[in-house]
Amino acid sequence: MHTMKNNRAKVGIIGGAGYTGQELVRLTYGHPRMELVWVTSESGAGKRVPGTALTFDPVASVDFGSVDLVFSCLPHGASGEWSLRARAAGPRVVDLSSDLRSGEGGAVYGLPELWREDVRGAELVGNPGCYPTGVQLGLAPALRASLVDTGRPIIVDAASGVTGAGLTPKREYMFGEVAEDYRAYGVGNAHRHVPEMARGLARAAGGEAPPFVFTPHLLPVRRGILETMYVPLRERIPADALASLYREHYADEPFVELFDGELPSLRHVNGRNVVAIGFADVNVDPPVVLVVAALDNLVKGAAGQALQNANLMLGFDEREGIPA
Amino acid sequence: MHTMKNNRAKVGIIGGAGYTGQELVRLTYGHPRMELVWVTSESGAGKRVPGTALTFDPVASVDFGSVDLVFSCLPHGASGEWSLRARAAGPRVVDLSSDLRSGEGGAVYGLPELWREDVRGAELVGNPGCYPTGVQLGLAPALRASLVDTGRPIIVDAASGVTGAGLTPKREYMFGEVAEDYRAYGVGNAHRHVPEMARGLARAAGGEAPPFVFTPHLLPVRRGILETMYVPLRERIPADALASLYREHYADEPFVELFDGELPSLRHVNGRNVVAIGFADVNVDPPVVLVVAALDNLVKGAAGQALQNANLMLGFDEREGIPA
Amino acid sequence: MHTMKNNRAKVGIIGGAGYTGQELVRLTYGHPRMELVWVTSESGAGKRVPGTALTFDPVASVDFGSVDLVFSCLPHGASGEWSLRARAAGPRVVDLSSDLRSGEGGAVYGLPELWREDVRGAELVGNPGCYPTGVQLGLAPALRASLVDTGRPIIVDAASGVTGAGLTPKREYMFGEVAEDYRAYGVGNAHRHVPEMARGLARAAGGEAPPFVFTPHLLPVRRGILETMYVPLRERIPADALASLYREHYADEPFVELFDGELPSLRHVNGRNVVAIGFADVNVDPPVVLVVAALDNLVKGAAGQALQNANLMLGFDEREGIPA
Amino acid sequence: MHTMKNNRAKVGIIGGAGYTGQELVRLTYGHPRMELVWVTSESGAGKRVPGTALTFDPVASVDFGSVDLVFSCLPHGASGEWSLRARAAGPRVVDLSSDLRSGEGGAVYGLPELWREDVRGAELVGNPGCYPTGVQLGLAPALRASLVDTGRPIIVDAASGVTGAGLTPKREYMFGEVAEDYRAYGVGNAHRHVPEMARGLARAAGGEAPPFVFTPHLLPVRRGILETMYVPLRERIPADALASLYREHYADEPFVELFDGELPSLRHVNGRNVVAIGFADVNVDPPVVLVVAALDNLVKGAAGQALQNANLMLGFDEREGIPA
Repeated sequence: MHTMKNNRAKVGIIGGAGYTGQELVRLTYGHPRMELVWVTSESGAGKRVPGTALTFDPVASVDFGSVDLVFSCLPHGASGEWSLRARAAGPRVVDLSSDLRSGEGGAVYGLPELWREDVRGAELVGNPGCYPTGVQLGLAPALRASLVDTGRPIIVDAASGVTGAGLTPKREYMFGEVAEDYRAYGVGNAHRHVPEMARGLARAAGGEAPPFVFTPHLLPVRRGILETMYVPLRERIPADALASLYREHYADEPFVELFDGELPSLRHVNGRNVVAIGFADVNVDPPVVLVVAALDNLVKGAAGQALQNANLMLGFDEREGIPA
Repeated sequence: MHTMKNNRAKVGIIGGAGYTGQELVRLTYGHPRMELVWVTSESGAGKRVPGTALTFDPVASVDFGSVDLVFSCLPHGASGEWSLRARAAGPRVVDLSSDLRSGEGGAVYGLPELWREDVRGAELVGNPGCYPTGVQLGLAPALRASLVDTGRPIIVDAASGVTGAGLTPKREYMFGEVAEDYRAYGVGNAHRHVPEMARGLARAAGGEAPPFVFTPHLLPVRRGILETMYVPLRERIPADALASLYREHYADEPFVELFDGELPSLRHVNGRNVVAIGFADVNVDPPVVLVVAALDNLVKGAAGQALQNANLMLGFDEREGIPA
Repeated sequence: MHTMKNNRAKVGIIGGAGYTGQELVRLTYGHPRMELVWVTSESGAGKRVPGTALTFDPVASVDFGSVDLVFSCLPHGASGEWSLRARAAGPRVVDLSSDLRSGEGGAVYGLPELWREDVRGAELVGNPGCYPTGVQLGLAPALRASLVDTGRPIIVDAASGVTGAGLTPKREYMFGEVAEDYRAYGVGNAHRHVPEMARGLARAAGGEAPPFVFTPHLLPVRRGILETMYVPLRERIPADALASLYREHYADEPFVELFDGELPSLRHVNGRNVVAIGFADVNVDPPVVLVVAALDNLVKGAAGQALQNANLMLGFDEREGIPA
Repeated sequence: MHTMKNNRAKVGIIGGAGYTGQELVRLTYGHPRMELVWVTSESGAGKRVPGTALTFDPVASVDFGSVDLVFSCLPHGASGEWSLRARAAGPRVVDLSSDLRSGEGGAVYGLPELWREDVRGAELVGNPGCYPTGVQLGLAPALRASLVDTGRPIIVDAASGVTGAGLTPKREYMFGEVAEDYRAYGVGNAHRHVPEMARGLARAAGGEAPPFVFTPHLLPVRRGILETMYVPLRERIPADALASLYREHYADEPFVELFDGELPSLRHVNGRNVVAIGFADVNVDPPVVLVVAALDNLVKGAAGQALQNANLMLGFDEREGIPA
């Protein structure tokens, strides 16, 4: 690492013109211990990076070696390659795409609330996906405590705002096609995020992943994810007992909010770097408990979590520069 | 019944100023074999019934005996009572509230696609709820064919537009509280519609209701319901085989649309009197199949279905006056 | 014209997969005196035309001579050319683009409420734009009565839903860019529709067009146009007197709705083939009166009006097949 | 004033449960030189103030004398009275309602960008309304430079998100009534904010207010105001020359953003304490120039501006605690 001047790390962002990139620009620009040095965008090259004094550079023109840490927000497919190229030039790298999440290139999976020690001081991190963040944080404590009946699948019925699909113009994400509609997509465990979830749940369960079904839906909102999870239990456990267990598990976590009695909704997490988790009893037999997780897909589901990881990689306080 | 002049039945609507009432006014007003004679509303009394030449009357001032059939769109609680009062005065009655759905006052449950013969010629009908319509039509063929593993609960994850909650001003339904939000409510099988679903599923199963979990969510859209149902199967059945079974079951139904390959969304059913049903394989063990039902809560989930029932009660073609 | 079998005219639609095309398919398909024979779409070729038993054809494969009337819903630029090519093959043609609105190819401008006789029996019609329909119907009676002070510009502040921009994917019309936003565009009388408005206002004024400023805005709604017009008056005229004048002017028009006391909004016109017009006094000097026009951009602003024109061209009742 | 411990002023908020109150809680809670001591709400009494460790108190139970400054966010009518009562107990007071905006009780009108010196050290301030903030900041430089032709009215066509109407449940602000609609209200200069605008414009003009027409519309968005202003000019002035004049006028203002070439929209100001102003030439005669102002009704239109005023009243840097 460079010798940080004034205790500030120099950072660069590859692919900073999309929704996630914009959020990351905003967060790093206001970060007390980071100095945003460059932001790349091919389509935006030469234009002002909104909210900053910088101008977008084409990726080919930046010197990766000039910074201490690089964030890559390119689309899946391209991002992993550029992340490795950047890493080879020296700086630590957080890749926000799904390319490095299963350890490609020696990358560490960066979900601090579950596996913080992996991230501390790491040089290359695969930043978790938005849906998998809620699923893993919402199910891990129950799995670690062996409460889940793995003979029945966990059902994860999820809904996301459209910024999760990025800024590339596609007919299915046009206002006229999304407003006043609600639809399932990527059904049958076909979503790109399913293998990532399976790996995470297996690790939390300390063995095989429990069977689960993941069904995402597209919501007519800009941002936010709500995951309604139907968890089969070995034995009936009251929702408030489960809440206590989670409260203990996440006792010192600044970015997990546990709800008592009521359930979180998108409103509670908008613009904030938190996963909010609530619980509800279900009157059915064999027993099932409802776990609802809400997060902002662009913050705790992307840029905010990337900042947690970057802070840990650089030896800063994990909460540094992350708005409560 | 009155001798119908010109083959037209005289009809009246109690509580016609709300969302369901407005839809029913629209449909009956354009009905080739109905003549809308009066519409009541306490709050709207004296004002024009939108889209018609009529004026809202207070309910106390109308003569129930002057019509052949009455629709009651009052809120739950009041509607059943007024329906029975109207019935006592002579006309046939369709109650759109939940008050008579379990047979109170001798009412017949009016879901024609499953139990049409009950409705034909009936004098008092309890019109199904919006959520239960999709659940029953979406699950009945599988239950009748004994495909469902009743040792595991069916999960019904549902989402509805806000017109389902009516026009009474409440803080939770204000635009500022609903837009950009998405939230679960009435969780844990606590929703008013759960007993109605249980009765219907039991009847379709020919015995006890299978265990199920119903979780409604509030969508930031005006109208439409999507129900994503996770159906545990005794043995794995491909989605297309299930689709064939449903196709046979609903072969002659004008108001059921079965999807092949893709899944229905709110867009497909907006303003139309149909339930659209689609199927998807899920790669999980033990086996589960996905059944997705979409309907317009104000049409097939309320006013349109009420018209199907009224047509059957009056001896008309069931499709009369119902826009395709 | 072909000898119409069963009194039905055969019609075809060029470019029927977009928003306007879909609406026109819906309306012609249910028209009692039209038979929809083919619908073209390059991108949709081979797929089902939604809501019909037809399949989209590529434009090159249809026989224009096989129908009595062709509607062209192609984008501006291409539409005029195809309209003339279709016309050359025999059928009457309604071009919904802006290409023929100033009389190119001998086309007649089809705004029946103002210049109906031009349209009756015409062979080629340029169908008015959505914004110009509201502006012309909202201002013509005042201009014809010489009430407007042409020494001050009329201000037309307009807002439209996004379906007005069509289905072609563009970043600026993505849900994430439109929701929770509201923005002016095409300002400074730069909008493509301004010359069309100027021609119409000049004709209504019986001379030169009055000076006017037209500012469109993009609304986060799917459909509907609201035009708030600030009309400078020679002398103060109360809004209700103006309303009376308009009521007389449009006395026999089935597709103009005049409001008394209140003002129309998008809700009133959604899905309907009407222009709704309201008036309000403004307490200011020199005198100004407010005229507000609302219409559904896809119906009275496009497909519904095209059907009015087609009915007139074919000698049918102008209201035939147009939902009230 | 109390001796401020640690350089922090103690503040209280009357009526802190509404939209404006919530925003003010958020801003004061994170303010480096303020300590939020109590927040009142009758309906919320006893419940947690969201995002804080405080509990809502009924207004009768708080000691106004315990703080250095009170913000009142009560509805118009009640707010002025409570502001004066609070003031009598010692603390400085910022009233966010319209009750004190014309100087009642000796209050100063708090629009710092135009009349900052009035506010510095003031003891009682009437905080400007959301619409008037944009109108005054958007028109004052042109009026001060005597560019406006006062023989023709300025037209202000404005649109606001629904949070401007507060949290009290009313039918017209229900999601089902606002979504997919757009409507004018308070037309004919009947809006409560018109006299406030007139006073401000008169003061900026250094004499009488120019004639103007103000027409607000309700947008289906949560927050944000866009004001499209048609300004009659004595002589034609290019938009960029006007922009230069404004740039000079607002040279040192941290909360005014001037746009070059493009126009601001709601997106640019969401959640931020700024008025964004843009300009466009209009090709019309007699000359008119377009001035478009955008602001967040809850921030620069309410809570953020209140904080500017409080900072000035308490002798702090005006920008303290206000997010850029």
